Amino acid sequence: MVFGNMGETSGTGVCFTRDPSNGEKFLYGEYLVNAQGEDVVAGIRTPQPIETMAQALPDAYQELVDNTQLLEKHYKDMQDIEFTVQDGRLYMLQCRSGKRTGLGAINIACDLVAEGLVTKEEAVGMVEPGHLDQLLHPQFEDEDAYKPDVVGKGLPASPGAAVGQVVFTAADAEALHAAGEKVILVTIDTSPEDVGGINAATGVLTARGGMTSHAAVVARGWGKTCICGCEALRVDAEAKTMELGGVVLQEGDWLSLNGTTGEIIQGKQPLKSAEMDGAFAEFMTWVDGFREIGVFTNADTPADAAVARANGAEGLGLCRTEHMFFETEERIATVRKMILATTDAARQAALGEILPFQRADFEGIFEAMSGLPVTIRLLDPPLHEFLPDGEFDEICEQLAAIAGTSPEAVGEKIEQMEEVNPMLGFRGCRLGIAYPEIPEMQVRAIFEAACNAQQAGAQIASVDIMVPLVGTPAELKSHEQIIRQMAATVFSEKGATVPYRVGTMIEIPRAALIAGEVAETAEFFSFGTNDLTQMTFGYSRDDVNKFLPTYLESGVLKNDPFEVLDTEGVGQLIEMATVNGRATRPDLKVGVCGEQGGDPTSVEFFNKTGLDYVSCSPFRVPIARLAAAQAAINAKKK
Amino acid sequence: MVFGNMGETSGTGVCFTRDPSNGEKFLYGEYLVNAQGEDVVAGIRTPQPIETMAQALPDAYQELVDNTQLLEKHYKDMQDIEFTVQDGRLYMLQCRSGKRTGLGAINIACDLVAEGLVTKEEAVGMVEPGHLDQLLHPQFEDEDAYKPDVVGKGLPASPGAAVGQVVFTAADAEALHAAGEKVILVTIDTSPEDVGGINAATGVLTARGGMTSHAAVVARGWGKTCICGCEALRVDAEAKTMELGGVVLQEGDWLSLNGTTGEIIQGKQPLKSAEMDGAFAEFMTWVDGFREIGVFTNADTPADAAVARANGAEGLGLCRTEHMFFETEERIATVRKMILATTDAARQAALGEILPFQRADFEGIFEAMSGLPVTIRLLDPPLHEFLPDGEFDEICEQLAAIAGTSPEAVGEKIEQMEEVNPMLGFRGCRLGIAYPEIPEMQVRAIFEAACNAQQAGAQIASVDIMVPLVGTPAELKSHEQIIRQMAATVFSEKGATVPYRVGTMIEIPRAALIAGEVAETAEFFSFGTNDLTQMTFGYSRDDVNKFLPTYLESGVLKNDPFEVLDTEGVGQLIEMATVNGRATRPDLKVGVCGEQGGDPTSVEFFNKTGLDYVSCSPFRVPIARLAAAQAAINAKKK
Repeated sequence: MVFGNMGETSGTGVCFTRDPSNGEKFLYGEYLVNAQGEDVVAGIRTPQPIETMAQALPDAYQELVDNTQLLEKHYKDMQDIEFTVQDGRLYMLQCRSGKRTGLGAINIACDLVAEGLVTKEEAVGMVEPGHLDQLLHPQFEDEDAYKPDVVGKGLPASPGAAVGQVVFTAADAEALHAAGEKVILVTIDTSPEDVGGINAATGVLTARGGMTSHAAVVARGWGKTCICGCEALRVDAEAKTMELGGVVLQEGDWLSLNGTTGEIIQGKQPLKSAEMDGAFAEFMTWVDGFREIGVFTNADTPADAAVARANGAEGLGLCRTEHMFFETEERIATVRKMILATTDAARQAALGEILPFQRADFEGIFEAMSGLPVTIRLLDPPLHEFLPDGEFDEICEQLAAIAGTSPEAVGEKIEQMEEVNPMLGFRGCRLGIAYPEIPEMQVRAIFEAACNAQQAGAQIASVDIMVPLVGTPAELKSHEQIIRQMAATVFSEKGATVPYRVGTMIEIPRAALIAGEVAETAEFFSFGTNDLTQMTFGYSRDDVNKFLPTYLESGVLKNDPFEVLDTEGVGQLIEMATVNGRATRPDLKVGVCGEQGGDPTSVEFFNKTGLDYVSCSPFRVPIARLAAAQAAINAKKK
Repeated sequence: MVFGNMGETSGTGVCFTRDPSNGEKFLYGEYLVNAQGEDVVAGIRTPQPIETMAQALPDAYQELVDNTQLLEKHYKDMQDIEFTVQDGRLYMLQCRSGKRTGLGAINIACDLVAEGLVTKEEAVGMVEPGHLDQLLHPQFEDEDAYKPDVVGKGLPASPGAAVGQVVFTAADAEALHAAGEKVILVTIDTSPEDVGGINAATGVLTARGGMTSHAAVVARGWGKTCICGCEALRVDAEAKTMELGGVVLQEGDWLSLNGTTGEIIQGKQPLKSAEMDGAFAEFMTWVDGFREIGVFTNADTPADAAVARANGAEGLGLCRTEHMFFETEERIATVRKMILATTDAARQAALGEILPFQRADFEGIFEAMSGLPVTIRLLDPPLHEFLPDGEFDEICEQLAAIAGTSPEAVGEKIEQMEEVNPMLGFRGCRLGIAYPEIPEMQVRAIFEAACNAQQAGAQIASVDIMVPLVGTPAELKSHEQIIRQMAATVFSEKGATVPYRVGTMIEIPRAALIAGEVAETAEFFSFGTNDLTQMTFGYSRDDVNKFLPTYLESGVLKNDPFEVLDTEGVGQLIEMATVNGRATRPDLKVGVCGEQGGDPTSVEFFNKTGLDYVSCSPFRVPIARLAAAQAAINAKKK
């Protein structure tokens, strides 16, 4: 036992060999004269900056500086050090690698390489994927300062800090955003109709839904902060009020969300913006040097694709064609006309109206991804998802005008479309089997767009058309026929060709089980780990929040399987399908386009399984690149 | 070419060596003098009974009789024979094994054994499982005669013929049935609340739902005729009218259902009742002599168990405890009180009220199954399934009285319970993890009932407690602990013990994938092929009718996977789980309790996979016994 509280020639302190918040190289820390360790931590006395120790205890200070430099060289990392001075003599108590921010982690790693202390390979291992997450989103200035204002907690569905004025409908979010304000959209839950509102919001808060609910997935895709499943939240959308933790907020009141912790904070908390500098870019080139698995992106619009590309995406792994349907009033009205059609001719006519805007969107995507492969998924959700929310009678009135029939006829049609379990219902390729004119239109739009973009100067690397929800070889074969026939037709009309592949999502357990047979037709597989996890576990991601918190608390599950891939169960299917698929077709391209494509421990599994690429939302692309590099480095070590 | 139309010494005819409708041994058939084959078939002239040919063409007749006897001996089966007489000379045109009714099939098979023409093994192979189905349900007197009255067609969900007066609610069904009338329950679809109405009805017709919808499963379980998924059917339950094929029926109008073909027929069509005689019983003893796999039954009440036992069930493979909840108004009210409880104490109190009736029901089942193993599944459906249907506000009013809270509080609770995909939601063992007091109560009721029944003289072979919807080893372990602790408690209270096992349904793909680990805790597996098929295919059985007809028509699927097991996909999981489960625990008991347990081609797969037993509804037990015997005989041949 040594004592720092033996008078003015004694003292105690904590220091870092570099500034953990930005990596700057100087002795960073604080100390107290005539004190023990508890005094520094307890906060009763205010510690002094460590550099003032040079005057107070000059010999001990010089020795401390020398020691810290020695320790850092020895451990080859920034050190967090505790020390005590007893009667002028320095005692080193403890040292360990210090915790750091994202910015700090990047700068320290780069500096250590420059100083020759670590190799680039070691440097890549020193930055946690979560560190990049911090760098890519704005942060609160001081997470301790806001604690008294925390009114509740939800699931940290999409990281970052968001501060804005509360609104309760997607329309209000768009209106207030258009007026130049920052808004937080607060709802019970969100539906595809709300995407405009989510896009307009800086943050989203919902009472229902899990980490992979609609709101969460959309928000993450756009790098928006999102907190989901805040069960204690009460929302009265009509009165435009919310209640949480005893606090009632009206429309326009300020609210802050910490999407990294799930904290919901009253008021307008101060923010600091995301910082990026040259070290980050340099670091990422090292990362890519070690990486073996490709990193693609999930993107539905040319703007998203451009962001992803800037973040280093090497291809587009998932373009959800249906997200385009909601972009304008005119589009969604046309889609509804198609859905409500009672004759093939009426459906064909509506599809004819959808074709031009699908084509225009695809052109933009092909241009944004020029030179890189683009994977487009055919229509996936059940058609009733495109119908408006609201009072049944009002909807029928509204749709009758669009469909040119009576409200009663519309009502009957809507009732026929209702499903008990829409997740397991009439969707995906099942739609294309029943209404081949839908994939025909979509495939035409894709090939016309690819040819047009090529003519306009874009380089078409590969058009990968992906059939969703395949469970039997016949479903894929039927779509393959449509795709190949339409390709031939469009190529002949355009007098041009583009390279293309026909492939499928592997997202139904049965598809994984019979993958060898599926690969007779499929030129590529893309594991849809969201749906595959839902069906392998029998968990609805919309409802899982009813019991998942209990499961995680009681240790029934170690992780949320929608965030971290379940390697034992779902992973077994992925491995089986990859092996059997490649046994049939050795050059089968295999990727993954679920949410876990951007999760580090999941990426490690995908790397080990020999997948060609992972695909994740634009903002997670750098994280996936780092995770993939670390996975490759770790695999080499084993 | 020979000619039967060369005058009065010529003729043509068709005959069977035995009566195909009941198997009676005599030359059965008809002929026409001076006619060609077309004349017999076309129905322009009325053919004569074959025996009158003895006078008209005596030499040819005698030769025909000799020939038919020779042919039957040669082919060792009842023959369907065509012949022509040209100018007194007999020409045999064609012979083949003749089609026969169920009664005919049984009697012919037994007679052929008695005559020494075939072995018992061959006789067992001569009766189709579908033949027994006919024997077990009443039939229409004449299926051709009613054709002009057919008004529509649905899915043949539960075979047999039903004739009764139309009603539109379960309550009306019960009332009219209580008044001694035969009723046909016609609804959009059915819910667990309607079981009383289904039980009261002689037949059920629904507009929605597939072959394994609620109505279909319940109806099959009780041997009720049922037609499901008649999409063209319009029901106005308030006005108490239905419309189908242009015909409007009011409550009380007569309707006939052919559950074997799916035909819906206007009016009161004449029926003939199921016939059974000694030959059937004898035949079934032969069947059991060849059978290797056990045949258990799914039964929820002592009455069902007794029927199944009479039909030859060797154990109870699935007792769904929740079906008891709807039996009386008092019971369901108590269950609802438990569901709406907002405190653990309130939930415990309600569970305390449920305990006595669960125990009483289990006592009845143990008595009915004395000496045979009984498998009881713990609570499986999501709790919201036990709430009443109807107008939201009315339900809240009604339930507030039961729960002792305000309608608003009830409304909030109900909204919290709503699920997007209830099939993949908060149900099965997930309920028991969240509310351990529910399995505690159920397990106490089971063990107390078993001890009481034993004391009353019943022989308790084995109490097999089955945990539903397990997807992780921890879920099963947590329930195992509850079961073993409660067994010890009850045994000590009662001063008695009964043999028991802890096991699980394998109905979630993940459970099949990690079966080796699950078998560390499970002493038995029971494949729930309904849910396993739903999740492996990603098909909701409530919604599958939206695309399954298209899939079957276009050949995407060869069979409805809910009727005939998908051996390639679902079967792969079953095989994998059986092999891996037994690798962990060599004496693991493995059975199947899904709908396909009674399907012949599925039983063949289960036999090959080495399952210990199949379990099916009481009325399918004889069919499963025959299918199992044929599977064993076929396997021996290979």
